[in-house]
Amino acid sequence: MSAISITAILQAKPGKEQLLYQELVKAVTPSRSEEGCIKYVLHQSIENKAVFVFYEIWKDEESINFHIETDHYKQFRRNIEGLIESRQVYRLQEVDS
Amino acid sequence: MSAISITAILQAKPGKEQLLYQELVKAVTPSRSEEGCIKYVLHQSIENKAVFVFYEIWKDEESINFHIETDHYKQFRRNIEGLIESRQVYRLQEVDS
Repeated sequence: MSAISITAILQAKPGKEQLLYQELVKAVTPSRSEEGCIKYVLHQSIENKAVFVFYEIWKDEESINFHIETDHYKQFRRNIEGLIESRQVYRLQEVDS
Repeated sequence: MSAISITAILQAKPGKEQLLYQELVKAVTPSRSEEGCIKYVLHQSIENKAVFVFYEIWKDEESINFHIETDHYKQFRRNIEGLIESRQVYRLQEVDS
């Protein structure tokens, strides 16, 4: 089973940018500490400060399933629920070229 | 001037998935060969084979401006024009956490 990349794009509700920023930053360290996490990078859009993008690489499907069942991830999702306007998540396979 | 990351999400028109795939793969090697290119990775969605995501890291703004003026990039944009349903590009700064 090959590695799985995830791109997640989150947009803050108007006025919630800073709160969302803080919650997203909090999610990085515990996620990176998980055994199946290869890469976990948070970005903020240069053109629209309300837009944030995670780029993640996980060892396999099992690692992602473990991740989304962790207490820290569940708490994260609860914390951001009222702060986000939209959330798009893409599960990806890297194309060898 | 710090590095700039780019996430680009492209969706193929129905029936154009394979043609778009070929054009996207062709874009990787010449882009990676550019001096300002730190990372240039193509992905395909696991859930929707018509969706492709580039994750790129460029040394600085100048490197991106150089990239979009190259012959290979201009040809790439012409080649994919009739193949794509949508194209979203996010210019991003990595958040230190």
